[in-house]
Amino acid sequence: MKRFSVEAPDSGTRARCGVLRTPHGEIHTPSFVAVGTQATVKAVGPDDLKKIGIQILIANTYHLHLRPGEDVIARLGGLHSFMGWNGPMMTDSGGFQAFSLGAAIEHGVGKIASIFPDEVEAAERGGHLKRARQGQSLVKITEEAIEFRSHLDGSPQKFTPENTIEIQRKLGADMIFVLDECTSPLHDYEYTKRAMERTHRWAVRALEHFRKIADGRQALFGIVQGGAYKDLREQSAKFISELDFDGIGIGGSVGRSKDDLYRVLDWTIPLLPEEKPRHLLGIGEIEDIFHAIARGIDLFDCVAPTRMARNGALWVKDAKDFRINITNAVYKADPRPIVEGCECYTCQNFSRAYLHHLFTAKEILAMRLATIHNLYFLESLMRQVRRAIGEQALVELAADWGISLGRMSS
Amino acid sequence: MKRFSVEAPDSGTRARCGVLRTPHGEIHTPSFVAVGTQATVKAVGPDDLKKIGIQILIANTYHLHLRPGEDVIARLGGLHSFMGWNGPMMTDSGGFQAFSLGAAIEHGVGKIASIFPDEVEAAERGGHLKRARQGQSLVKITEEAIEFRSHLDGSPQKFTPENTIEIQRKLGADMIFVLDECTSPLHDYEYTKRAMERTHRWAVRALEHFRKIADGRQALFGIVQGGAYKDLREQSAKFISELDFDGIGIGGSVGRSKDDLYRVLDWTIPLLPEEKPRHLLGIGEIEDIFHAIARGIDLFDCVAPTRMARNGALWVKDAKDFRINITNAVYKADPRPIVEGCECYTCQNFSRAYLHHLFTAKEILAMRLATIHNLYFLESLMRQVRRAIGEQALVELAADWGISLGRMSS
Repeated sequence: MKRFSVEAPDSGTRARCGVLRTPHGEIHTPSFVAVGTQATVKAVGPDDLKKIGIQILIANTYHLHLRPGEDVIARLGGLHSFMGWNGPMMTDSGGFQAFSLGAAIEHGVGKIASIFPDEVEAAERGGHLKRARQGQSLVKITEEAIEFRSHLDGSPQKFTPENTIEIQRKLGADMIFVLDECTSPLHDYEYTKRAMERTHRWAVRALEHFRKIADGRQALFGIVQGGAYKDLREQSAKFISELDFDGIGIGGSVGRSKDDLYRVLDWTIPLLPEEKPRHLLGIGEIEDIFHAIARGIDLFDCVAPTRMARNGALWVKDAKDFRINITNAVYKADPRPIVEGCECYTCQNFSRAYLHHLFTAKEILAMRLATIHNLYFLESLMRQVRRAIGEQALVELAADWGISLGRMSS
Repeated sequence: MKRFSVEAPDSGTRARCGVLRTPHGEIHTPSFVAVGTQATVKAVGPDDLKKIGIQILIANTYHLHLRPGEDVIARLGGLHSFMGWNGPMMTDSGGFQAFSLGAAIEHGVGKIASIFPDEVEAAERGGHLKRARQGQSLVKITEEAIEFRSHLDGSPQKFTPENTIEIQRKLGADMIFVLDECTSPLHDYEYTKRAMERTHRWAVRALEHFRKIADGRQALFGIVQGGAYKDLREQSAKFISELDFDGIGIGGSVGRSKDDLYRVLDWTIPLLPEEKPRHLLGIGEIEDIFHAIARGIDLFDCVAPTRMARNGALWVKDAKDFRINITNAVYKADPRPIVEGCECYTCQNFSRAYLHHLFTAKEILAMRLATIHNLYFLESLMRQVRRAIGEQALVELAADWGISLGRMSS
């Protein structure tokens, strides 16, 4: 059985539709991957996710390794069984979290706190950030491994290319990722190059180890790095493409401007093999989603719909940045659903006034109802995107959303 | 159409089965009334409540009057429409909250904080408790009204027998309550008697006002008071029974011992008319539920299943106090459901290990899954109770739960 087939390339862009087959079902691409960091998509259950039409989840190896541990999850039958999700699932290698939480502290906690608010809070409680600020770095990268400290209890931890494969084997997701080092825009060319070369050596080690222990059910994705440097991105795209991965992730976009991100995709994707699925690791907003898909991305994970939902930012088409802040007093007695005609459970049953009330009264149900809407809104957009690609009309769909796709560099 | 029919009186106890008809459907009694204080049963949606088999909700007039206000809810079509619940619903008069939050401050915040943790936290934030401790009481009871201050913003508020009927008319629940003064065990006989007599005068005023504005769809419940004093309880039971209420609430049990509660029911219920439904306002745990039903209670509201759920106390039959603390490390890798054979969504899909993980990781989904189980557990118990009454076997069912019903005083 072929794991991935490209079925409808768009003509005006590099976008494409495809079908990705996993032991837990098919995914129609381009697809959003809902983020379930700690083996739960925050505030909603698997029943909600099925009804919304979520195709695939990504859980986080760093978090699950620290708590409850891959051995507990394996004993419970693996991630699918543990969290009651029988659809397709990914895990990332955890390298990004292990690295970021330590390294970003060197550049001030403010920045990292916006990316990992919960982790930073836990680390503050444990006193680990204080120790880190006093010079005891939380992270050290060697040829062998990423050495880091748990943000939960400060315990020393180590990720190697091999053990992250083993942890992810125990977690049991359908698609897993190699360990990589995600450099930041604060790193210079020389450091970014050295890190990329190490990431390449880690990719080879991970692939070798994966071959030894693979059960034939999991697919392994390599990761392209190289920062914001064209020659490094090209070098990395070629290197990772030549290895026998089942799919390719594009990493390292955090902290960049939108244009940086688009340029990286323009440099990288034309060098990747057509027949492998391409995953963009961690993406931001609706505009980015259109641009990434137009450049040939098949899968992307994105915390925005769920995180924004919990802050009361509800997604709509006709507003600035595609969202309204439901805590605004203007919604206090607004009888309309978030989006007229939206078929999500929330819009079918509740008014903006009720959501405003739940958020104002700090009721837990607010989180679930808001998350259901934002996830449904994005899945509904993805269905439109796939249809538009099939009709050679992605540029027109983007234009209808006020987004111009006419700036692809090469 | 008769609003209430008693269908199966038990022989060994004063328990009875019945059917209570409302414009939003029938309730089979004895029935648990799920608490939806702020127009939401905390952490679950109406979809969850329907699947669990919840028959009826009670929302809180004090809270909804302060936020979002009965006018907003009326504009949104009333409580049912506002919160997306199309089943039977009650509101209480709000007197208990208006009174307790102020009065209990005189006896120390500790006690009231255990009953109203969220409200006390909000009041602390607003500085209202501090002002109250400095001698500016939050509550004043006159012949005319309960005057109190909002725990949200300190604004002066007033509940009268008449305006609480009007507020509840706007909220639009199927069953509503008269304003009463719920005395505490700290009040002496003289005060309790004076308060009871005022409550009686308020009952007459409320009923008169209700008759003027009633639409024929809402049912009005009077409330028996009289503290822990036998002659007062008897006097109140007779007085309230003679008025033309649709049902009767028994109030004032908070802060008493279990035996006090049982004695009050033994004194009161034999004096109430057989043909009216009897509601026990605010009850504690499973043992109390059996004792109240055995004494002839038809309806009771109870925050225990939902509040305990949010603290990780999950209800089971075979454990001390009928619950386990899921945050205990012993459950870290426990593959069993909370209760073997339980048909709730949580037990059908998730292990104790997963729930332990969600609580430990402070994931929002923990609240929903735990609440679903506890509510289902109680609804399932109520189905057993109704069947047992039909089979003249309530004493035996209670014995099977380790509860002796053989202590009814008269």
